[in-house]
Amino acid sequence: MEKLFIGIDIGGMSAKAGLVTLDGKILSKLTAKTDASMDEAVFLPLIKNLVLDLIKQAGVSLSDIGGIGMGFPGSIDDEAGVIRYCCNLNLRNAPFAVNLKKALGFDGEVKLSNDANIAALAEAKFGAAKGMKDVVLITIGTGIGTGIISGGKMITGNRSAGAEGGHMTIVAGGELCGCGRRGCFESYASTTALLKMAKEAAETNKESMLYNEVKAGTLTGKTFFECLDKGDAIAKEVMERYITYLGEGVVNYANIFYPEAIILGGGVSAQGDKLTVPVQKYLNEHVYGKEYNPPIKVVAATLGNDAGIIGGAALFFD
Amino acid sequence: MEKLFIGIDIGGMSAKAGLVTLDGKILSKLTAKTDASMDEAVFLPLIKNLVLDLIKQAGVSLSDIGGIGMGFPGSIDDEAGVIRYCCNLNLRNAPFAVNLKKALGFDGEVKLSNDANIAALAEAKFGAAKGMKDVVLITIGTGIGTGIISGGKMITGNRSAGAEGGHMTIVAGGELCGCGRRGCFESYASTTALLKMAKEAAETNKESMLYNEVKAGTLTGKTFFECLDKGDAIAKEVMERYITYLGEGVVNYANIFYPEAIILGGGVSAQGDKLTVPVQKYLNEHVYGKEYNPPIKVVAATLGNDAGIIGGAALFFD
Repeated sequence: MEKLFIGIDIGGMSAKAGLVTLDGKILSKLTAKTDASMDEAVFLPLIKNLVLDLIKQAGVSLSDIGGIGMGFPGSIDDEAGVIRYCCNLNLRNAPFAVNLKKALGFDGEVKLSNDANIAALAEAKFGAAKGMKDVVLITIGTGIGTGIISGGKMITGNRSAGAEGGHMTIVAGGELCGCGRRGCFESYASTTALLKMAKEAAETNKESMLYNEVKAGTLTGKTFFECLDKGDAIAKEVMERYITYLGEGVVNYANIFYPEAIILGGGVSAQGDKLTVPVQKYLNEHVYGKEYNPPIKVVAATLGNDAGIIGGAALFFD
Repeated sequence: MEKLFIGIDIGGMSAKAGLVTLDGKILSKLTAKTDASMDEAVFLPLIKNLVLDLIKQAGVSLSDIGGIGMGFPGSIDDEAGVIRYCCNLNLRNAPFAVNLKKALGFDGEVKLSNDANIAALAEAKFGAAKGMKDVVLITIGTGIGTGIISGGKMITGNRSAGAEGGHMTIVAGGELCGCGRRGCFESYASTTALLKMAKEAAETNKESMLYNEVKAGTLTGKTFFECLDKGDAIAKEVMERYITYLGEGVVNYANIFYPEAIILGGGVSAQGDKLTVPVQKYLNEHVYGKEYNPPIKVVAATLGNDAGIIGGAALFFD
């Protein structure tokens, strides 16, 4: 029988597990609820049962599993298999890889990593940048997560504490960020930042479609792009400003890593060309050495919510 | 006989070649003059003769040489051995690795890379970060060069066009940079930027020691730090502002790569603690995840002008 792998994407609301083949196909999926109160005493049996239920549902056994890979929102020591810190869950300095292995009586390996890093790995192996060796994924949502693949490998830094590119300063002394510092990329180019800009512009332009959305309390990334589609001039102005900031961060990543592709992920990446075309234009105009360096593609992520599951499994696909 | 390697550091004024042992010691050195008019027809015989004169001076022969590694200021395709673009020399799209090999009748390999990248390699293998696997070198001079070592390897991006971290925006829309964009790290944290800040502050504070240097036309990185040492209040103010900008760039590198050490190189790195201590303090206070991530050391480069020669040779030391 072909070796199978389990990928588990941990979030503050749910843990999504999937049985994944070596070519990145998900054969079976299962989800469990998580919440912020969960410490390891609760979380460990939850994940143990999620794995056991998943293999039961798929009609396989633990001995068919080549490895279990998990992605967490937070700071993970990949090498040691330790959760140093996890956003939205009560896990601190937990040696979770060895504990899960023991709880399951699993002979194979359990690997942990940051969720943005493994999403980048998944997109580089099976998604938007399939076959590319140098890739940066920028996940745009409430905040900004980044994952870096160089020479086909995740770049995670010492004790895998790096790749926190949402907290790269692009406007020194600028907008306050959730991390407590000022001017982070995240505080200018996250969906949260886009909607803040949109709201501020709408408040002083009450004839705009955008204002109608604000007034009705229905302004979201999706409705913002609807206003843009319908030709709202204020939405267009906001979008131009937003692309400048998103573009600055993209250019920084290009100048530092010079990947083959920069992938835009997260909810707004569903907008496809509407997002990637203006960012591509900004990058082409501003990247360092554009006269003599190879071009860099800007593409939208294609794996969506499955990136975490596939990426977890892909930790074993070297 | 022990295998020896040749490292050559190319600049707009000179080409410095050295005979290097496997443990990073330079046995013999030789320099040739370069200038901006040099195209490949002039540059190739110059470097060929430099190599031949160096081995003659050292009393060895070409067959004793394990490899020749060269660092250039500019955009190099390491894999192909091509100089795409070289600052201050008239070399464009030159397949120099193969041409030098042929001109010398050399059986070994000739490797080319960017000078900041190989300086980082040298400092990680034999210098300020000896034995570390994750290192960022920030070379502060007329501009800012950066070199990135991750897992013991240079990170250079697709066709090695990356690691241009001097052109990372830290103040979107800010000061004009030599590259034509605004707000680059280089335009706030190079020695040029420090001296510009110092000059502006001196002009409005004519009682300062700093103003005496400006008036006498003797303001340099060295005399700036002398004013600081003597307790000049204006120099102190300028230094605090400069550290903020340099610190922002250092924190960005820390958040993205999370290396074990960040090395400050270039002329001002001769100031040692006077530069590294305040940058270390800024980093400790501002790095993301400081509550749970391992510390990052800020150190001054130790190889000085030899970094390019040793780094060139170190391209063969994997």
